[in-house]
Parts: sequence; structure tokens; C-alpha cells
Amino acid sequence: MLETTSAPTTILDLTQMGKNARAASYALAKATTAQKRTALFKIADALDANAESILAANQLDLDEGRINGLSAALLDRLDLQNRLGGIANDVRHVAQLPDPVGAVFDENVLENGLKVSKRRTPLGVLGVIYEARPNVTVDVAALALATGNAVILRGGKETFRSNMALIQVLRGALAESGFPQEAVQYIESTDRRYVAEMLKLHQYIDMIIPRGGNALHNFCRENSTIPVITGGIGICHLYVDETAKLDDALAIIHNAKTQRPSVCNALDTLLVNKQIAAEFLPRVTAHLGKDGVTFRAEPRAYEILRNDAQVQTAGDEDFDIEWLSLILGLKVVDDLDEAIAHIRQHSTQHSDGILTQNMDDANRFLDEVDSAVVYVNASTRFTDGSALGLGAEVAISTQKLHARGPMALEALMTYKWIIIGEGHIR
Amino acid sequence: MLETTSAPTTILDLTQMGKNARAASYALAKATTAQKRTALFKIADALDANAESILAANQLDLDEGRINGLSAALLDRLDLQNRLGGIANDVRHVAQLPDPVGAVFDENVLENGLKVSKRRTPLGVLGVIYEARPNVTVDVAALALATGNAVILRGGKETFRSNMALIQVLRGALAESGFPQEAVQYIESTDRRYVAEMLKLHQYIDMIIPRGGNALHNFCRENSTIPVITGGIGICHLYVDETAKLDDALAIIHNAKTQRPSVCNALDTLLVNKQIAAEFLPRVTAHLGKDGVTFRAEPRAYEILRNDAQVQTAGDEDFDIEWLSLILGLKVVDDLDEAIAHIRQHSTQHSDGILTQNMDDANRFLDEVDSAVVYVNASTRFTDGSALGLGAEVAISTQKLHARGPMALEALMTYKWIIIGEGHIR
Repeated sequence: MLETTSAPTTILDLTQMGKNARAASYALAKATTAQKRTALFKIADALDANAESILAANQLDLDEGRINGLSAALLDRLDLQNRLGGIANDVRHVAQLPDPVGAVFDENVLENGLKVSKRRTPLGVLGVIYEARPNVTVDVAALALATGNAVILRGGKETFRSNMALIQVLRGALAESGFPQEAVQYIESTDRRYVAEMLKLHQYIDMIIPRGGNALHNFCRENSTIPVITGGIGICHLYVDETAKLDDALAIIHNAKTQRPSVCNALDTLLVNKQIAAEFLPRVTAHLGKDGVTFRAEPRAYEILRNDAQVQTAGDEDFDIEWLSLILGLKVVDDLDEAIAHIRQHSTQHSDGILTQNMDDANRFLDEVDSAVVYVNASTRFTDGSALGLGAEVAISTQKLHARGPMALEALMTYKWIIIGEGHIR
Repeated sequence: MLETTSAPTTILDLTQMGKNARAASYALAKATTAQKRTALFKIADALDANAESILAANQLDLDEGRINGLSAALLDRLDLQNRLGGIANDVRHVAQLPDPVGAVFDENVLENGLKVSKRRTPLGVLGVIYEARPNVTVDVAALALATGNAVILRGGKETFRSNMALIQVLRGALAESGFPQEAVQYIESTDRRYVAEMLKLHQYIDMIIPRGGNALHNFCRENSTIPVITGGIGICHLYVDETAKLDDALAIIHNAKTQRPSVCNALDTLLVNKQIAAEFLPRVTAHLGKDGVTFRAEPRAYEILRNDAQVQTAGDEDFDIEWLSLILGLKVVDDLDEAIAHIRQHSTQHSDGILTQNMDDANRFLDEVDSAVVYVNASTRFTDGSALGLGAEVAISTQKLHARGPMALEALMTYKWIIIGEGHIR
């Protein structure tokens, strides 16, 4: 399937896909909550019913991935074999979330009698570009349908067969539910020029959500004429000051670094106040080192830890890397000012925290660190839609417009102003 | 002044300007409401006190503009001679608006005891690119200061001297109020390459607001790596159905077209239901024609109006033009469906309305026309921050993310998530 549909001779008409998506979006915007729920349950059931063919396609992707020498982490991401039932259940969960479409707010009658309000409406058409996770195909389609948006998807080449199998099932269920199949479209080619073309379809696509690494985000930012929600890249910091409860701090640091090191809200850099550095840093390396963490220490921290085999000296560039692995940067700072200055310089404005018992310093940190999520005395791992009770997570935004931090269904909505007069003129 | 500062040898370091703006933004974000108000009143007073030098600079711009053959409309836009007092008073008005910084919302204590809330914070650094209106220099600087944002401005070459004089006064007043002068920076060159360079400073600028024509908006959309708020381009429609009160309709159409034809919320195209077209269209051309309006009519409308000297036949492209002048497109449609289809195809999603007594059709129009502001029985001219009681207007957004329609102070804000734990781990 990969060979035929992505062969160089395949010519896709993305403008036509955009027009079809826009047309579908008008139908979706009118759909009732009940219609959308019915379709979502039908999708979930169809995923269960077609598990065999989906998993067979996925197995081909996995086999090819192994032949091509994909890393174990990448193979894990693209493996659906024990996950498909969970993915279908996630769709059933989305089906039961409150429908955000149509909520009315900021109602007002002006002095001249004009009735003014705002009404929440779907954005229209979403464009989602992602890499090796085929579950995103289903997650995003379900979230788009739940919010009345059409979507154009472009997944990674490693999961092309899995995605094609999933899309076929999704579109079948949509058609059976009376929705246009163009509500969910997939760019059936792994040719990268279609990504560039997709990013210029501002007439037809309202928002681009890249889900992948830095290179993908940069490519979208640099080439898109459509608003892009960048995010999901976290260089996350914790600052431990001289008043922190050190046992708690150790547990938080351990959790933030090791509970799931491959994700964006995992800890990358630990800043320690100089007054406690000599006592606390060796406890950190001992406690986390047991679980395989290695360390990159700037000179003052290295001075304290030089006899520890798991500690290397850090270069300047080490504080600008999202590790996504069991590596932790270590730095000694003089005070809160230096900690804030370091974070301002190196953070990706994702998740940064302070561990302290000094509430004045905590408040200064909350005021002055300009990140999507700022913490006091908690692990950065909570930056997550489900951990924060959002019900669903579309992405984690580190840019500042529209939506910041974990994005729920509302982030896929816009609003329109509704103005009702009785012959009003200005 | 123009000659020396914008000479090709002038080399500006925009990256350094970006860094300075970012540094200033940290100071601005911490400023109290009282400090910001004091500075705003000082700016207003300084504008009054320095009126003579500002108006002298403006006179030079006007003189050069006349020599260069600028249109009367353009000369009017850049003329400050009778407006400076009003501009200063607008700054005093902004000083008295509620401070949006720091508002806390979505407070919640999770089951695990984690305290979660969101806090409204300034975006950081705004980039504003505008054309011939020097009042924008002061308006935007005041709005930025009121919302705790730094700003980098780039005005048109026609008003370079006026802008330089205004900036000098603004920055003097900022310094006297204890704010960093870098809170308001101006790109002191009319070389367009600096616009392109500015649009790539995503590390230092959080939002680009273009204020000008289509070409400027397209340039920003195509070249910016920073989120751009496009807008201010209105191809606005009114649809008159067979149940409309025709006297009211005539007054609304007259107001929407003629009250201020050069602005974005003025009417561009009138759609008339076929059942009333033969009766109503001649009334429209007679009533508006008295005030100098001319018409572009598609075949069915032209058929009715062919003996009217002020009516020409419309080409297809005439329905994709924002007239900004006393020209009105006319089209007969069969029904609401055709009206909605026409608007979907030709509208810039700015302001579109229906004139009807049929509330079912009104509701369908409100549901199905996806524009920033949708109207029933009122003039499109109300799409305006002050007309809608917003207190201030930053711009009118026709894109769908972050802010749609008239943008008030809140559109210059983002939020951060604040999470307070007591040693919480996941």
C-alpha cells in the first residue's frame, strides 16, 4: 500500500481537499450533539470490529520499521497491538464530554437597544501534522468531530499503512452516521512537498497543529501562512531554594525526571541555591542515579560532584537541550534572581517550578517566570490535559495566543459576535 | 530627518531591539496599575505640551505628501493638525480603563489537593506595522503600556517625521515615569527589509498586528514566523429578504454604505431576494444615488436597473473588492441559501447581515454565516470597538484564533497556569 499510494506519480489536489474540508465544516457546524455522539460511538465500535485488519496493517508498519532499524522508542510509539481497545474507549470518552458548540457569553444590551452577544463556534478546518503515533489519527479525528470541525491529517511515513487502515474505518463510520466523509481527510502520500503545500492553504485551513519534534515545529512556523499552535517542546526547570523541604524536593525531582523521561513535561534542568547545594546535590545524584539518571553539571555544581561517576561537566549548550531521556542538567545559582534569569534564557516556556517554603519568593517566581505552566512545590509532570482534569488534550501550547499550556476542546473553538437590531443605524 | 535616519547607510540591529523589548516587557509586566496610569497621563500631558514641535514635523510630512501627489484621503489620514488634542485625550481615556493584568480565573482544587488556576498576563512584546496614520503610534503605545506589553512599531514612510516626533515625546514621558524607554521602540528606517526582518523575530516578539491594506496583511501572513492577527479588510454584505421592513432596510443600507465609506465595516455588496428586487432595487439606487453612490449590478439586478445612469454591469471580480468608496455591488438571489452561498464565497468574514422579519431565517443566517460579526436588522457600521462599548479598539480581527472581531485590551493578554502543590508527584 505504501508503495502504490505514495509513489511519485501520485498527484494529490490539496486545494480540492481544502475546499472539500470547508464544505464539510459547514455540515459539521450544524450537527447536533446527539448526531456527533452517535457518530463517535459508531467510530469506536468500528475500531473494535475492524481490529484485525487495522492490526495487520500496523504489523506491516512494525515489520518494516524493524527492518529499517527504527529505535525501540519509535517502534513503541507506532505499535497499536495492545492499544487499539484503549483508543476506541478514548473515543467513547470524548463522545461524552460536554459539547462546547453554541455556548453564548458576554451578552449585553447596549444603550441604543442593540443586543450584543458572542457565540462559541467551531474553528472550521484543522490541519494536523504528526509523526510516528497512529493513535493521533483517531484521537484528533474524534476531537475534531466532537467540536464540529473538519480535519486534514498528515501522519508520518513510518505509520502510513496503520493510518490508512484507521482512516478507512473512520470514514466508513462517518458515512454510516450521515456525516460527509470529507470531515476527516488524510494526505495519502508521504511526499513532504504536500506538507509545504498544506501549510499555504490559509483559505481553507484555520489552524495548524504540529505534533512532533522541534524540526517539525520550526518547519511549520517558517512555512505556514496559517496560524500554527507551536508547543510540546519542554525544556523544564525546577529551582530548589534554601528553604525547601528537601525530602519533598527529592521526591518531586525524582518524579519529574524519571516517571516518564521521554515526554515534554519531564524535568531537564535542576537549579539549586548555593546555600544548600553542597548538601543537596549529592543526595540528588545518589537518589536519581540509582534509577539510571546521569548528570550534566555546570562548573559550580561539578565542583561539588566531581567524584560522582554519573556526573559530567555541562557545556553551555546542554542547558538548551530537551533531554527526553534520563539526563539531568545541574546548576548552582546564587539566588532567586539568578534562577529566574536562567529560566528566562533557557526555558521553552512550557513548565517551570520552584520548590520553597518562602511564599514571597514563590509569588515572585509565579509573577516573573513567563511559562505556560508555573509550579510551586509540585512535579512538572502535571502539565497534561488529563492530569489537570480537562477531559481531553489536543496538544500543549507553548506559544501565547489563543491557548496556552494543555489545550482542551475549547481550544478548537472560535466565537462570532451576534448583533440583533431593530433597524439600528450609526 | 527622513533623509538622514532612513539613508541606506543606517544599520539597525533588530535582534538587539527585540532583546531590549523583551527585557522591558519584564519590567512592564510587574508595573502596578497606578504606575501605568501615571505614565499614561504623563504621555497625554507631554503630547499637549509638545504640540508645536509635533505639528511642525507633521506639517513637513504633509508638505512632502502634497509634493509627492498623495491622494486627499491619504493626506487626511496623516494630518494631525486638528487632532492632536483628541489623541491626547484618548490616552487619558485608556488610562482609566480597567487593568486586565493579573485577573485570576478557572480556579480549581483537584482531588489530589493540587491548586490550579489561570492568571491573565501580558503577551510580552507586540509588533505593530502600520501605514499612513500617525495617531496609531500613540494609540498603540498607550494600549501596550496599559496592558503591560512592550511594543516595536514600524510606521509608513509618509509619516516618518510625525512618528519620530511622537516617539520622542512618548519615550521622554516613559523615562520620566520610571519606565524603560525600550517599552516603546520604533524602527527608525523606512527600508522595507526591516519589516521582513522584524517578522522573523519570534524569539522576541509575541504577536504581529498589521494595520493597513490587503498587501500588508498578505506580506505579514506569508513572511512572519510570529503569529499574525490579520483583519481590517471587510467585504461586507447585507441580504434583504422578502419579509424585510423595506423602509428600515433602506435606512440601514444607506447608513452602512454612506456614513463612512472608506472604512472596513462599510457595506460592499447588497443581496436582494428576487421577490422584492423589482420593487426594492430602484428605491435603493434612487435613495443612495442622491448621495453619490454608484452601482455594479450582476445581470439579474442590471436587468431591473438598466435605465439608471449610475448603474453599471458587474463583473465577477467586482464581488471580491473591498470598495472603500461610494460604490455598491448589487445582486438578486433566489433565496436565503443562495445568499449564504454568495457570502461564504465572497465575504472576508468581517461583518455580514440579514434584514428580515422571519426569525427562522435570521437564525439560520446567524448559524451558517461564519463571519466575525453577524447582524440581524442593523447596519454593519457597528463593528467597532467604541460602538460596541469595548472602551478601546486594538484592531478588528478577521482570523479566528485568539480574538475575533473588534479586539479590546484583553486581546493583548495571554494567561499562565498556576499550580500550587505541597510536594505533589504523579
